[in-house]
Amino acid sequence: MAAPVLDFWFDFASTYSYPAAMRIAALAEAAAVRVRFRPFLLGPIFKAQGWPTSPFNLYPAKGRHMWRDLERLCADLSLPFRRPDPFPQNSLLAARVGIAALDHAWGEDFCRALFRAQFGGGIRIDDAAGIAEVLAGLHIEPGPVLASAQSDAIKARLRAQTDEAQRLGLFGAPSFTTADGELFWGNDRLGQALRWAGKSASSE
Amino acid sequence: MAAPVLDFWFDFASTYSYPAAMRIAALAEAAAVRVRFRPFLLGPIFKAQGWPTSPFNLYPAKGRHMWRDLERLCADLSLPFRRPDPFPQNSLLAARVGIAALDHAWGEDFCRALFRAQFGGGIRIDDAAGIAEVLAGLHIEPGPVLASAQSDAIKARLRAQTDEAQRLGLFGAPSFTTADGELFWGNDRLGQALRWAGKSASSE
Repeated sequence: MAAPVLDFWFDFASTYSYPAAMRIAALAEAAAVRVRFRPFLLGPIFKAQGWPTSPFNLYPAKGRHMWRDLERLCADLSLPFRRPDPFPQNSLLAARVGIAALDHAWGEDFCRALFRAQFGGGIRIDDAAGIAEVLAGLHIEPGPVLASAQSDAIKARLRAQTDEAQRLGLFGAPSFTTADGELFWGNDRLGQALRWAGKSASSE
Repeated sequence: MAAPVLDFWFDFASTYSYPAAMRIAALAEAAAVRVRFRPFLLGPIFKAQGWPTSPFNLYPAKGRHMWRDLERLCADLSLPFRRPDPFPQNSLLAARVGIAALDHAWGEDFCRALFRAQFGGGIRIDDAAGIAEVLAGLHIEPGPVLASAQSDAIKARLRAQTDEAQRLGLFGAPSFTTADGELFWGNDRLGQALRWAGKSASSE
């Protein structure tokens, strides 16, 4: 029987997508669930809810808690953490590169490295130089990847992926969706989402 | 040495305050932390953020996920769950009765019973009859408690408690605060908040 699948939806600028991306591979392996990395853009989804920017900027008390909470979470997980400036960064280019990268065996490594570079290393993900540095760190030649990321085909795939996220009812990131239609929102739901995916597959 | 203290801030109409209220006593005992129940009103805090009602009503995608998430959480915890109608209920009277009740040994039992009656039993908490029924179920004579809840002293204590919540930076419920100034938001942070309270006390 094929392993059950869990879709992992994230935006590269999303704070809680960082710990989720760093944790998911080991947890999925332990749960015998196959994870699909699905980068998308939160921006259009926030705009549809009437938010011109991150709710963490719109609601300062919520934002203050989030930064402290993320700092505590990263300390618990032994993950480096540095508050990105500016926040949120424009993640359009990063998402396109992510989609292009995920056609390759090193795609998930790239996603993790980009999250760590942004939230741990202070690297800007909204320009090609920062992304090229992360690619080079993985011994991937940046030029062809960045060119492919700007192709019409990749642009269209990112638009389609973001449309699909909206159709599935996503309103934030990270989110997790299962083949039987369950939506789980937030890094805090990763374990539950993996259990759900594993359980519903074994009861088929 | 006195047990470390964790303040548990909740609004009786708040959905995730229900599982937190039902879980906290056993977890606090295991962590050797003393918990103080602090009912307050989310309404004025939401209004200060520009929300005329619950964000779960203002943002339908967020609301749909919350109801399904709460249903899944309650199933995992073997807690009864029924979606309150209307939502949110006006929790002013309930909060006043909660403050009055917490002057008595049965106060926390009352808080748990009121949450269970609302989110598990479909009882309205926005009128005296529903609250009286919950009190009677605990073998407490409702009349004197309801009269005390409407006294100027209790009204002032609820206002002061809500003001304190706002000063502490609370923007949602449940929330947990420690003596050393940490704020943890959400039912998902209960375990971490208890560990923090226990740890910071033992390092004094």
